[in-house]
Amino acid sequence: MADRKIILSAVLGDGYGSLPFAWRAPQVDPGNYANIDANIRYAQAAERGGFAFVFTPDVPAVRSDVERSSIPNIMDPLMEAAAISQATTNIGFVLTGSTTFQEPFNTARQFKVLDIMSHGRAGWNAVTTSDPMVAANYGKPVADRGERYQRAHESVQIVQSLWGSWEKDAWIKDQATGRFIDPAKLQPINLGGQHVASRGPLPLPPSEQGQPVVFTAGGPSPHLLEFAGRYASGFLAEVWEIEEARAQRDAVRKAAEDAGRNPDHIKFFTGLVTTVAPTVREGLDRRMALSGGVFDARLPHLGAMLGVPLRPQDIDIPLTPEQLSVAHAAPGDPRSGIALRLAQAGWSPRDMLAHGAIDFHPVTVGPGHVHADHMQEWFEAGATDGFWIMPDVWEDGLDAFVDEVVPLLRERGVYPDDYVGSTLRENLGIPEQYGIGGWLK
Amino acid sequence: MADRKIILSAVLGDGYGSLPFAWRAPQVDPGNYANIDANIRYAQAAERGGFAFVFTPDVPAVRSDVERSSIPNIMDPLMEAAAISQATTNIGFVLTGSTTFQEPFNTARQFKVLDIMSHGRAGWNAVTTSDPMVAANYGKPVADRGERYQRAHESVQIVQSLWGSWEKDAWIKDQATGRFIDPAKLQPINLGGQHVASRGPLPLPPSEQGQPVVFTAGGPSPHLLEFAGRYASGFLAEVWEIEEARAQRDAVRKAAEDAGRNPDHIKFFTGLVTTVAPTVREGLDRRMALSGGVFDARLPHLGAMLGVPLRPQDIDIPLTPEQLSVAHAAPGDPRSGIALRLAQAGWSPRDMLAHGAIDFHPVTVGPGHVHADHMQEWFEAGATDGFWIMPDVWEDGLDAFVDEVVPLLRERGVYPDDYVGSTLRENLGIPEQYGIGGWLK
Ligand SMILES: Cc1cc2nc3c(=O)[nH]c(=O)nc-3n(C[C@H](O)[C@H](O)[C@H](O)COP(=O)(O)O)c2cc1C
Ligand SMILES: Cc1cc2nc3c(=O)[nH]c(=O)nc-3n(C[C@H](O)[C@H](O)[C@H](O)COP(=O)(O)O)c2cc1C
Repeated sequence: MADRKIILSAVLGDGYGSLPFAWRAPQVDPGNYANIDANIRYAQAAERGGFAFVFTPDVPAVRSDVERSSIPNIMDPLMEAAAISQATTNIGFVLTGSTTFQEPFNTARQFKVLDIMSHGRAGWNAVTTSDPMVAANYGKPVADRGERYQRAHESVQIVQSLWGSWEKDAWIKDQATGRFIDPAKLQPINLGGQHVASRGPLPLPPSEQGQPVVFTAGGPSPHLLEFAGRYASGFLAEVWEIEEARAQRDAVRKAAEDAGRNPDHIKFFTGLVTTVAPTVREGLDRRMALSGGVFDARLPHLGAMLGVPLRPQDIDIPLTPEQLSVAHAAPGDPRSGIALRLAQAGWSPRDMLAHGAIDFHPVTVGPGHVHADHMQEWFEAGATDGFWIMPDVWEDGLDAFVDEVVPLLRERGVYPDDYVGSTLRENLGIPEQYGIGGWLK
Repeated sequence: MADRKIILSAVLGDGYGSLPFAWRAPQVDPGNYANIDANIRYAQAAERGGFAFVFTPDVPAVRSDVERSSIPNIMDPLMEAAAISQATTNIGFVLTGSTTFQEPFNTARQFKVLDIMSHGRAGWNAVTTSDPMVAANYGKPVADRGERYQRAHESVQIVQSLWGSWEKDAWIKDQATGRFIDPAKLQPINLGGQHVASRGPLPLPPSEQGQPVVFTAGGPSPHLLEFAGRYASGFLAEVWEIEEARAQRDAVRKAAEDAGRNPDHIKFFTGLVTTVAPTVREGLDRRMALSGGVFDARLPHLGAMLGVPLRPQDIDIPLTPEQLSVAHAAPGDPRSGIALRLAQAGWSPRDMLAHGAIDFHPVTVGPGHVHADHMQEWFEAGATDGFWIMPDVWEDGLDAFVDEVVPLLRERGVYPDDYVGSTLRENLGIPEQYGIGGWLK
């Protein structure tokens, strides 16, 4: 633990950014969504910053008001990563894939091919898909959680077994003796459950890291914790406050221990939406310009988070002492504490909203040290092993992070100076894996 | 029809070649199967030869005796093509995808992303999977033909509808006015059948050719002909004799007409396994060295094809006049006529086997004109629109074809001097497609 360092990851998605109108930013080409060159550029920027992996969420459906907003999703995680793998050398790929709407054999195959094509840099973020708009694209309703997790267990066991169906040195390929594969080291898996089944073996050899790394993502429900504890080497969390993050990280580590695993072999990541700017003010202005004018509509929600009714005409006025004296963090919304601290610091409601008080993940805005401080504090408090970074606008936001935040983290000794190795497992600090997973032993 | 030209395609697969021991050839790296650089090199060679597309068959299972033979399949068609698309500019990708073991939404999505990433070069070879070893990898038995084709019809209709769910100019992406998509031109599809369903729309815009090209492959069963006639713009056939090829091509064209389509909009391709060598003798020797010593075992089969018992000790002796006087092409095997002609030309049984008399597709062996003659004859007889070429060994066999056969075809005026355009549809001579397919109108 002495040389424990922050692990960084960059989200890749639609090619624009986390702000609703990022696609309209002057520095952004509005065709980026369908232009693989954009995500190649961003992955290369992240690689320049020593990021361990890019992370692609995946919610494949047209869900937003597409007349004015972009479709906030990557075209396809695996297909884009296949292309990006050829233009990068060290950065890993943690790609979301559904256990509900994918056949385990197809998942095992495509992730393993990415692992091979990237020389050991693939990871699978295994999620049970609960979005009804996605389910409808497969002509199905959303199953209840019990059924989704039953299928998820079956799927990941089949996938990991298929990955392990070749032992480390099964592929001999000796032209002189004519032995291609050692048949004793290549075995079918013959696994079948209630929902999915496969015989195997997978027709694919191990990669430089053995097999892809399993991640999962979500809140700390008992279902997800058990799933993560058994199979996952990475956990992508959604959490706003440092205490809550530490509790979640402890719960995830305990779940791994309960499953008989080393808790250091599951890494816990919290999210961070970043706007890097010379000053906080400039950062807020940058965010405002691309927020799509949603602030007026969100004002009542912000008021509810603070327990203080906010009127439209007061949007630019910091809360009065009277308002502050009754303001409190509403317990129903985990972001309320952040909003309260901003209010107490004298921010206007508009600036609080521009800061992302009602966004999906914690937000940091301002010069490099603002972001570095947040990360160092969380990391040193044992609240996280690293961060997935979601820039406001990819085109310049990721470069700004690499140029202005990464050097500070390195100066402070909390971030590695270079890649530890060329595989994802090496850069995460988890062991290579060959053969069948521990859960079957 | 005046400027009708041969359309060429190169098979991509395991990185070795069509001969069982291609993986042991001295010019071949035995790690090619898991090395994407090999297939990139071969696709670039085919592009140098003006090939309209590479074609990847797909039978994802460990089926062969892998102790001595390679696994004769590509790692994954879509993932490899995603990478290859970034290293090529004109050549298309016709990739096999199962209608039986893939969800239509996933098929629609990944092929469309390839189409977008390659700027309009994707095609889908839609097949119903009938191999029990593949089915077992999905934990299922092989369904009967009626059920497989029912699901195939549903799948291709959903896939094509998803591809067409954006009209040509739906994606406005105008930063000034802030209109991203014209919602009137982006519609859900709401298609559901007995086996598969999807709501859509697909979250992906049209490509430079509108949408990927649908192919199919197989023998001329009524099921497949109806399927091809309704949806396919390309048909990959398995046929050994010119008359039979013409009959099949006519049947495929008639099926398209019966479905109300222009028969020139479905292109018919026959296979050709090639060994390019300075002389026929050198070509046969090259093939013998990499055939894995299967000839003795195959001798009885060859005898049965000719109606003449062949003894092991006679393997190097051309048939006697007495044998030839009773020899005839056994009607049960479509390759018998070729074997008979070789026997009548005085070939020994070993040379006949080395020539590929019992291979899966027609074989041509020798200097450039041997291959060019075959292709010109078939093409000018109206037996085919083009060929999918499967070299004996990819590493040098494809370059040899490009260097020694393609120039002859060009001299003879039967092959284009350059690409017609940069999309697969342009290079096939079929119209671009936007919106919903004709079968729904
Ligand atoms: C950081 C993060 C990323 C997530 N990414 C995805 C995703 O890409 N696709 C998806 O369907 N769900 C995603 N989820 C949702 C979770 O997988 C999970 O479905 C959700 O938390 C609901 O949990 P439940 O299914 O256990 O009820 C993500 C969650 C978090 C916290
Ligand atoms: C040139 C050619 C290529 C084929 N490629 C594939 C393939 O890649 N994968 C596959 O499962 N079947 C492939 N097939 C098999 C056919 O799709 C089809 O399943 C077979 O002809 C049996 O036909 P049926 O299903 O109509 O009985 C191919 C057939 C031909 C002639």
